[in-house]
Amino acid sequence: MIQFNIKRPDDGIRVRLKEKTDNLTKPKGSLGMLEDIAMQAGWIQQTLTPELRMPCHIVFAGDHGIAAEGVSISPQEVTYQMIANFLAGGAGVNFLARQHGFDLMVVDAGVNFDFGPDVPVINRKIRKSTRNYLCRPAMTAEEADLAVLRGAGCVQDCFDRGCNIIGFGEMGITNTSASALWMTYLTGIPLEECTGAGCDHTGGIIGHKLDVLRRAMANYAAAGAGDAEHGSAAGVMRQFGGYEMVMTVGAMLRAAELGMIILIDGFIMTCCLLAASRLYPLVADYCIFGHQSDESGHKRLLHFLGARPLLNLGLRLGEGTGALCAYPVVDSAVRMLNEMSAFGDVRVTRYF
Amino acid sequence: MIQFNIKRPDDGIRVRLKEKTDNLTKPKGSLGMLEDIAMQAGWIQQTLTPELRMPCHIVFAGDHGIAAEGVSISPQEVTYQMIANFLAGGAGVNFLARQHGFDLMVVDAGVNFDFGPDVPVINRKIRKSTRNYLCRPAMTAEEADLAVLRGAGCVQDCFDRGCNIIGFGEMGITNTSASALWMTYLTGIPLEECTGAGCDHTGGIIGHKLDVLRRAMANYAAAGAGDAEHGSAAGVMRQFGGYEMVMTVGAMLRAAELGMIILIDGFIMTCCLLAASRLYPLVADYCIFGHQSDESGHKRLLHFLGARPLLNLGLRLGEGTGALCAYPVVDSAVRMLNEMSAFGDVRVTRYF
Repeated sequence: MIQFNIKRPDDGIRVRLKEKTDNLTKPKGSLGMLEDIAMQAGWIQQTLTPELRMPCHIVFAGDHGIAAEGVSISPQEVTYQMIANFLAGGAGVNFLARQHGFDLMVVDAGVNFDFGPDVPVINRKIRKSTRNYLCRPAMTAEEADLAVLRGAGCVQDCFDRGCNIIGFGEMGITNTSASALWMTYLTGIPLEECTGAGCDHTGGIIGHKLDVLRRAMANYAAAGAGDAEHGSAAGVMRQFGGYEMVMTVGAMLRAAELGMIILIDGFIMTCCLLAASRLYPLVADYCIFGHQSDESGHKRLLHFLGARPLLNLGLRLGEGTGALCAYPVVDSAVRMLNEMSAFGDVRVTRYF
Repeated sequence: MIQFNIKRPDDGIRVRLKEKTDNLTKPKGSLGMLEDIAMQAGWIQQTLTPELRMPCHIVFAGDHGIAAEGVSISPQEVTYQMIANFLAGGAGVNFLARQHGFDLMVVDAGVNFDFGPDVPVINRKIRKSTRNYLCRPAMTAEEADLAVLRGAGCVQDCFDRGCNIIGFGEMGITNTSASALWMTYLTGIPLEECTGAGCDHTGGIIGHKLDVLRRAMANYAAAGAGDAEHGSAAGVMRQFGGYEMVMTVGAMLRAAELGMIILIDGFIMTCCLLAASRLYPLVADYCIFGHQSDESGHKRLLHFLGARPLLNLGLRLGEGTGALCAYPVVDSAVRMLNEMSAFGDVRVTRYF
């Protein structure tokens, strides 16, 4: 796997950021999480006047061989159909990206469909769907490395165009299954607490889904003896996939390396961050948690990570919609630092 | 008091709004509170394609005679000083109004200061500060009626300019005290649970504040025998004020009468809605609760009203900042209805 050079932002600026924020014309602390986000943005950008430039949102899409086991109520064809919907501008992610001024990139990481040359999806396809991880690794080590590399490359493209804040989302039928497996292996939290209903709002799928995932874990354990990376982040990532998730890991790591602010979406994207932070713990410094998803397991995972999401709107759509919805809060935080007057600059008695 | 003619929106459209939302290309219910807000906006506007036009935000400001009793750690002069800050564009409410495209109106409802003719505050002053309600009513019945009328007039001005969504905020040192009193009288919840620290983040003021408010209640009870409106919404409103709060009540009632969407801010604005809804219960149909404030009592009051706020960002600034922060969520909800493609319009298999 390619290496990343992620640095912790210098803490020296934090005192000055706190001082500036406390001197704005408001009772101290009264802008709550806006003040926390302002601190983080200024810390990441090493400035008292952070700015958000050319926000980008990347949706990585891929299919999963495990779909053959019926772990999702939705058919696999929805993955490629929704890509077309993204490209036509009619999906959830589209109206949110337009509303908040995000440049939207739709990346084929491994969709089980041939789009053809005329479809304007960004082609970074590793393979048409991962393998079925019930009995064997979802991807090879080489494929995983390539996915990381390509994810990093997508972010580099955004950065090169001037972007300094980026959101990520995904499309991939059954990818809450892979996410639950990543979560249980990388946190030690029992599988049952990591597994939700995905897009089945009735919850009727969970019993079968759990059964399949338990068997996949048993088979992985049985095959594990000779694998030096067994149970590690790298090992779990490639065992259970998917390509869109591994690509997201690479994307997050490059974004942190480049000093960008990363907007974290819901359950699947938080699992990707979990894996990324096992490889490079400092990636978390660059992350703002946008939304606590209704997908079972996400609240638990956020707590495990010590993360406080900005929003809790009951979203469970994926696509990165929770990250996009949080953008205006981040924007507000930055505006607070740049636009509010300070005690001393105006004739307002300091109040509390 | 002037009368308002507030109608309940026709429920007939709700089935069609639900059907439209369920047919958008996403798992059913997966946009959570955006779907609830879309329903409410479409219901209020009686259309499947609601729109938000010329959003306005009104900050009503006033002073309180009770300030003489030291119930706030901040001096009364902050009220008029902050008006100047609002007019200069440097306060919290300003950057949020700019960010979200709101027309900001700053109204002097009863500030204890002569601004002079050159200061562009909207002059609706009833009196320079309410009276000290420790021993007598904060305002006369005539003043209260005039405040309601003038608040309604401010909203009418916005409506006449094309506005159909409106936020309200306040500025008035010690107005968490009046709010706590309104809350305890109009909900029956004990005063201790209605009283918070206001802008004193140390909480050290609460003991003295409670003592003063208890004495004010005792004096009101003692004087109450001959007052036909004793303990009623109208009675409590004028007993404890302030002018900016009573003006807000009139503003909310006119907004509902005109079919506008009302963005409710934190503790003080929710207390104003509480009073408004005692006068005209249907006003609540038009309200979207923007934010759960950190001011003690607000969570309890929201629960009492059965209200689910969109955000919980730890704000406790006032000025209507929590209402403004919620605007993009409302905008998203409306965009969802207007911009997302439907199953059937595009080739996406219905998924769940």
